[in-house]
Order: sequence, then structure tokens, then C-alpha cells
Amino acid sequence: MRSLARLVSLVEDGASAADSGGPAPPLRAVLRAVAPHTGTAWVIGLTGSPGVGKSTVTDRLVRAYRETGRRVAVLAVDPTSPFSGGALLGDRVRMSDHATDSGVFIRSMATRGHLGGLSLAAPQALRVLDAAGFDVICVETVGVGQAEVEIAGLADSTLVVMAPGLGDSIQTAKAGILEIADAFVVNKSDRPGAQDVVRDLRTMLAMAGSDRDRGGGWKPPIVSVTATTGEGIDELTAKLGAHWTWLGESGLRQERRVKRAREEISAIAVAEIRRRVGALPGESRLDELAAEVAGGKLDPYSAADELIAD
Amino acid sequence: MRSLARLVSLVEDGASAADSGGPAPPLRAVLRAVAPHTGTAWVIGLTGSPGVGKSTVTDRLVRAYRETGRRVAVLAVDPTSPFSGGALLGDRVRMSDHATDSGVFIRSMATRGHLGGLSLAAPQALRVLDAAGFDVICVETVGVGQAEVEIAGLADSTLVVMAPGLGDSIQTAKAGILEIADAFVVNKSDRPGAQDVVRDLRTMLAMAGSDRDRGGGWKPPIVSVTATTGEGIDELTAKLGAHWTWLGESGLRQERRVKRAREEISAIAVAEIRRRVGALPGESRLDELAAEVAGGKLDPYSAADELIAD
Repeated sequence: MRSLARLVSLVEDGASAADSGGPAPPLRAVLRAVAPHTGTAWVIGLTGSPGVGKSTVTDRLVRAYRETGRRVAVLAVDPTSPFSGGALLGDRVRMSDHATDSGVFIRSMATRGHLGGLSLAAPQALRVLDAAGFDVICVETVGVGQAEVEIAGLADSTLVVMAPGLGDSIQTAKAGILEIADAFVVNKSDRPGAQDVVRDLRTMLAMAGSDRDRGGGWKPPIVSVTATTGEGIDELTAKLGAHWTWLGESGLRQERRVKRAREEISAIAVAEIRRRVGALPGESRLDELAAEVAGGKLDPYSAADELIAD
Repeated sequence: MRSLARLVSLVEDGASAADSGGPAPPLRAVLRAVAPHTGTAWVIGLTGSPGVGKSTVTDRLVRAYRETGRRVAVLAVDPTSPFSGGALLGDRVRMSDHATDSGVFIRSMATRGHLGGLSLAAPQALRVLDAAGFDVICVETVGVGQAEVEIAGLADSTLVVMAPGLGDSIQTAKAGILEIADAFVVNKSDRPGAQDVVRDLRTMLAMAGSDRDRGGGWKPPIVSVTATTGEGIDELTAKLGAHWTWLGESGLRQERRVKRAREEISAIAVAEIRRRVGALPGESRLDELAAEVAGGKLDPYSAADELIAD
């Protein structure tokens, strides 16, 4: 487990170094070595606003899959924190529950400030965990903005976790989540307002109709759970299992994985080209152009044209 | 006002078209025309978790600045919604308060799914509003993840809005917000727990010490408000005014604007290069490479190398 932790760190550091212009040769060597061993893990994404109880739901899933003998990894991607690795308080608290279980690996990853955010480091960490033989990998992230869309891109099955009492429904129940959810989890179902969240979701899903299809006609179920007690977790794993089976039968599992690889390759290629642009002798020219734009002498598109033409 | 609304739409559509590969010539013409008229507006960014009351705080600021005779624009950037423009319910509700006031312009902008998110369309919309003679432009966004960092990049003064009762403090009071806040607003100060939020913030700021300086030693004040009643708004505008003055005196206002222009130019240049990569005859090659990566035959870095080498 310690070797694996070090390998994930190497991948994380390597991807951010590649991001900021470093060559990161060990990263490449690692990824070349793991490539033939990838492709078996089931990646489950969990996203939702702060405070909905994503970590508690994840923890219940970990326990449930452990009971069936599967090896489980958790990658908690935090797009709001510049801190990483074992440094997070929550990490240590969570690890302690599974400290003696070699079938569980939990890891936090910070992406704030990285160009490309999730898109570079996280997929590579998933490859390493996949190759290390984990059957299920839960990827957890705070679900607002681009991180949410990106996690859906990484996962085979995406859970959107909600809870009653968190801001008004217009703000929290954005139409966008319909596009990414393979299932909705309404956590804290023992609290007042939980039924309202379920009803609002049903209305939104009905209104969206077939527009929200990620292809193939899967209808995202809404599962009420109380993660603190474990209530509803059996139903959740059943629905998740049904989704996994459906993904395989519909051919979408493979289709999504090819699409994901496509996006990974593009992101790496763009980062590499961005690195080359940054390394051009035009750095001081960029400073001059920025001063002209700030002074209203030039518009930014004309400035970009000049920069590229240099 | 209707012409201005159309112009902002044009900029928004143009930037996303440019983003996805279109040439967007009207956007360029507009931006060339407005460039000489930019540089006077004060851009105030507001960010915070869903449910903290950002819109209500913004609305109070709009009223306060209108009372001093200043023209005010609001750009509500929603990184979680694929919908845009006047389509948002919140927009229409909010517009109605100021429908007869030609000194107020309110506009929503969706950035979800746009490559580069905020980084392309929003700055250009700000240029248009600046050139249209608005003295104050409030840019409001849901503050989790990259959007938060990006809004701080766009604004002269950044407010981080918080409120009691929204999830636990580890999740909502991330260390990252210290880097971007020029002032903290603790809204709903009449509710239980508001003083705890203020105290936690003070502790975080004390712990962070001088590390969080955005340069020049400004100490972000913490202002308690109840936006629904207007309590504390006078103090907030006073602190904001002090920050604006300090920005000017320290030279940071100009420094930040040049830095912002630099980032805008880079983002446009990268989008243009990305467009050129996408337009290469290698599209079908990318599909082949993606299939090889998904099948474990190749790692994504080697695939990216091959793609660029093509």
C-alpha cells in the first residue's frame, strides 16, 4: 500500500510538472508500464454540493463492496484546495477506519491551480489504481462547476448526491446535473425536506424527458439514503449494479472509455502545446501586449493574433 | 439597454464560437471598437457556496451604489448551468426590481461546457460593459473550484460571501479562499452560528498570516451583514471603498489589470492553437489512438506524443 501511495504521488507530481512545463519522465515510464494492466476497474463518481454527505455515502459504498470481497479505492479530488495527498485532515480520519484493511486504499488529490484541473492528474491516478487491481474505484469531488462535468467524464457510473436544507432549489438543483447523473442519491432522508428534494428531482427529470439521455435510454433512479445509519445503501448498490450491467450490455461502457481516452490524449496534447507556446521567446512580447490591452490601445484578440504570429 | 444586451449576447456567442473553432469576426470587430473606451469600471467579484445569499448581497450593493449616482452592471456567471442569457428565472425576478432604472444592467452568462469556462467570454463581456460607461460592475459566481479562482482574476475587488449553517466548516472554509478574498462577507448575521463563522474566519486569517498577501499587505476585513434587511451594507461599501483606494495608491490596480490582460491574451492564444490542433487532419488518428489507450495497448502520454508528431 505504501508503494502504491508513492506511485500515486509520483503520478500526481508528474502530471502537474508536465502541466507547468516539466518533462516528467518518470510519469511517462510509470504510465507505459501500467497501460497493459488497465481496463478492469469500475469507476464510480460521486459529486454534490458541500455538506450533502458525499464522504459518508462513499464510506458506506466502500463497506458494502468490501463485504462482497471486492478491493476498493477512493480518490477524493478536491478542486477547492491547494493542499494534497495525506495532508488533509479528512483523509486521516477516513483512513483510520480502514487502516488494517489492505483491500481499501483512500487518497486525496488537490487540483486547484493546476491547468486543466482534474483532466490531467486524476485520470492517470485512476490508471495506476486500476492496474493495481482495485475492482471498484470511487472518485469523489465537490460538485459545482467544471469539476462536476469532468468527474462524469472520468466515471463509468456517476452519482449526484443531494440533501435537504442546503440553499434553495433553484440554486442547488441545476438543470446541468441531469446531464451527468446516472443515479441520484438523496442523503439525510430522515431529515425534514428530504421528500421535497425527491419530488423536485422527479419533476425535473420528467420535464427534461428524453433530452437527458446519455445514450441508450437509461433512466437515472432516485435513491433515498441515510448514510449515517446505512439505510438505503442496499438499494443504492443494487441500482449501481444494474447500471454497470446495463453499461456493458448497451456497449456504452466501452464507448465511454474510448471517449475518455480521447479526451485524455487531447488534454495532454494541448498541455504540451501550451508548454511550447509558453516557452517561446515571446514572453516579453506578451508583457508588452498585456500592457497595451490594459491601456485600451489594443483588444485581446488582436493581441493574441500578434502573439501567435510572432 | 436593449442594444447593450444584444452586444453582450454577440460577445458571448462569439467567444464560445471562437472557443469551439469558429472565426467569430463580429466579436473581434466589437472588441476592437470598444478597446479605447475601457479601463474605468470598478469590477467587484462576489463568490461563495450555493445558498449563502450572493444575489441578495449583490442587490444591496447595486442599490447602495445607485444611491450615490453610479451606474451599475451585474454579470451573474453560472458555471453550473448550460443555459444562458435572459433564460434564467432568477434573472427575470431580479431585473424586475430595476426594470425602470436605466442605470442598472443585469445579465446572466452560462459557461458550463465552454472550454476555458469563464476565461474567454466573461472578460470580453466586462470590456463591453466597461466601455458602455458602467462605473461599477458586479461579477457574481458560485464559488467552488476553478470559477472562484477565475473570478478573482477578473475582479479588482473580490468578496467571498459566507453564511452560517451550510455544511461543516472544514468543507466550506477551505484555505484556498484566503488567497482570493479582498474582503469576507458573513451574510445572514442574524442567524445562529454567524458569530462562529466570523470566529473561524479570524482564526484562519491569523493562522495564514502574511502568507496570504496578494501583495502590498492588505488585510481582508470581515463584514457581518444581513442582506435581506440591509444591515451592515454601509460598512461593506465603506470597506470596499477603502480597498479600491488602496488598490490605486499601492499601484496594484494597474498591476492586476496588466496581469489580467496577460491571462486573457494567453487564453485566447491557447484556444486558437487548440482550434488548430482540432482542425488537423489527425482527427481520425485521434480516434485510433483513443481506442488503443482504452484497450491498454498504449498510454495516453505516448498517444499525445504521436498525435502532435503527426
